[in-house]
Amino acid sequence: MQHRLERVRVMVMERKLPALLISAPTNRRYLSGFTGTYGWLLVTPTTALLFTDSRYLLQAGQQAPSFEVRQVVNPGNPFPTLLRDAVVELGLTQLGIEAAHMQVAEYRSLQKEVGAACELVPVEGIVETLREIKDSAEINTLKRAIALTDAAITAVIERLTPDTTERQAAWMLEMAMRVGGAEAVSFPIIVAAGPNAALPHATPGDAPLGTGQPIVIDMGARIDGYHADLTRTIVLGEPDARFWTIYETVLKAQEAALLSLRPGLLTHKADALARDLIVEAGYGDHFGHGLGHGVGLDIHEGPGLRRENPLVPSQPLRSGMVTSIEPGIYLEGWGGVRIEDLVLITDGGCEVLSQAPKLRR
Amino acid sequence: MQHRLERVRVMVMERKLPALLISAPTNRRYLSGFTGTYGWLLVTPTTALLFTDSRYLLQAGQQAPSFEVRQVVNPGNPFPTLLRDAVVELGLTQLGIEAAHMQVAEYRSLQKEVGAACELVPVEGIVETLREIKDSAEINTLKRAIALTDAAITAVIERLTPDTTERQAAWMLEMAMRVGGAEAVSFPIIVAAGPNAALPHATPGDAPLGTGQPIVIDMGARIDGYHADLTRTIVLGEPDARFWTIYETVLKAQEAALLSLRPGLLTHKADALARDLIVEAGYGDHFGHGLGHGVGLDIHEGPGLRRENPLVPSQPLRSGMVTSIEPGIYLEGWGGVRIEDLVLITDGGCEVLSQAPKLRR
Repeated sequence: MQHRLERVRVMVMERKLPALLISAPTNRRYLSGFTGTYGWLLVTPTTALLFTDSRYLLQAGQQAPSFEVRQVVNPGNPFPTLLRDAVVELGLTQLGIEAAHMQVAEYRSLQKEVGAACELVPVEGIVETLREIKDSAEINTLKRAIALTDAAITAVIERLTPDTTERQAAWMLEMAMRVGGAEAVSFPIIVAAGPNAALPHATPGDAPLGTGQPIVIDMGARIDGYHADLTRTIVLGEPDARFWTIYETVLKAQEAALLSLRPGLLTHKADALARDLIVEAGYGDHFGHGLGHGVGLDIHEGPGLRRENPLVPSQPLRSGMVTSIEPGIYLEGWGGVRIEDLVLITDGGCEVLSQAPKLRR
Repeated sequence: MQHRLERVRVMVMERKLPALLISAPTNRRYLSGFTGTYGWLLVTPTTALLFTDSRYLLQAGQQAPSFEVRQVVNPGNPFPTLLRDAVVELGLTQLGIEAAHMQVAEYRSLQKEVGAACELVPVEGIVETLREIKDSAEINTLKRAIALTDAAITAVIERLTPDTTERQAAWMLEMAMRVGGAEAVSFPIIVAAGPNAALPHATPGDAPLGTGQPIVIDMGARIDGYHADLTRTIVLGEPDARFWTIYETVLKAQEAALLSLRPGLLTHKADALARDLIVEAGYGDHFGHGLGHGVGLDIHEGPGLRRENPLVPSQPLRSGMVTSIEPGIYLEGWGGVRIEDLVLITDGGCEVLSQAPKLRR
């Protein structure tokens, strides 16, 4: 934690800011260790303050020893007042705020309170950029979440029948992960059979899984705040030739990406490794989302592996990033295929972390 | 839905605004019926637009027939561009935005896009104020979620033993609600035994429930987006005299409030109905939170039943509000007692919606 704090201090100084106010819950947890639901961090080159309320005072002191804890009392000493006092005490004339997280109302309330003394400066991406590179403790936690997810899907797939409904299957998968030790699911589990599988974000319904049609299962276990994310496409009974054409296109696209990921590769080039093969096979218009996204304390975080986009610049992959690789093809009325693994970018290329078996012809 | 839209139009006009942009997911769902995870509403006196992406086009058209759906395409036609086009098309010189929900970064991006033509005006509480009064469909959904919660706790309490851990009990309760038809739990279930019960927001751990000590259980089922919220305090085996003193103080405080709630009562006066009895019993410093909060599409929404606070004005209760009534006493090192029911404010007083039995001496 101390190491993370020092790195944030350097990044704040590089932006020529005397201080940063951190309000995003996952950034707060990453930087301080504090897991409560209510709190702010104020970081300067020499000071680290954590503001929280009476519910979390003890916990904050234990979890965040690098921070000085100050108590928010509503009414009496609400956060804007405490922040103004800290700004005066530390002589701050500027204060960075997390523009991607702070709401307009909160911003206006803080600005009103500290306004004359201190300018609030919206900044983006400081702690998020640090979080893109996982340290060994984070990688170990992610591996535990991934192993639990792999074990759950492997055990449950054995028990699925054509009469099992999407909703029942989703609940069987959730139970397997929760009983296995997950603190929560990473996101609502997707089990989508036949036409429903044509929706990348399908909701499980009361349709049975049936035979011969694609079933997309997208799921993950959360452990100690870290998210696994896995997709497998299976079929009960015998799939038809069209299925195999589409499935093997997606699988080859994924394998092409997995073979070539390495530090320095630009994210839009990584996306193209898989996308080009899907386009060549004639399904380019049916792969509507990006190839992958970072995972960690958030289920979606940096880096984003997407098509070239002038609004969101591409970035080079770096050793220590953990990202999903999840190409898919979706055909309205028929269904879809998506295959997703989590990978760790390493100095020499990448390590595939997901171990759940994939359907093979 | 059409009725809700008309009421929002009136409120927007009352604030002398020509249009409101709605970005909060629960407000969007309430006003349009659209349940997707990505979308904005733009409402003027004569127009209602819904912006979403390709994943949700079909669903949005089905769920939100009062709205004209426009597709966001990133890159190509991102939301800020579509919004600018709509602002020009509708001739808007001002546009209200939801200050309690929109992030600073989004606000700045939109302001940059529409800036010259149109002023963004931060407003608060328009749709939230409407949502405080539940209609009959909402009350029916809440009653289903509450009945499911009541049934689950009643069934599970029978099966708890002194060796059951907090975590196991929480999972038994969650399973009972999920198997019973809950789409999710309203919030992470609290089961807190003995000293852990002194924390109003305790996390279930591996401690056994034991005998003779207070066990606080706080839980709820979510159905069709609506949240139940219920707390019971139980004891396995024989509680001591101190427990009964504290328990009966909390129960009397709750009953006093339930007897006197009615339309027109100010929220801080409602809080005082229960708080005064706890203060008189000598535990005033050990009831740190407010008496209750509204529930609906959010687990915490208006009205807030709290002590008088110059920062948050009190408001009169109104018929159709649904709020929790949850006094508590928390003693560090010993434990705590909280009893919580949901009530519907009616023309004649209130109707207690929760039916789960309460511990009685």
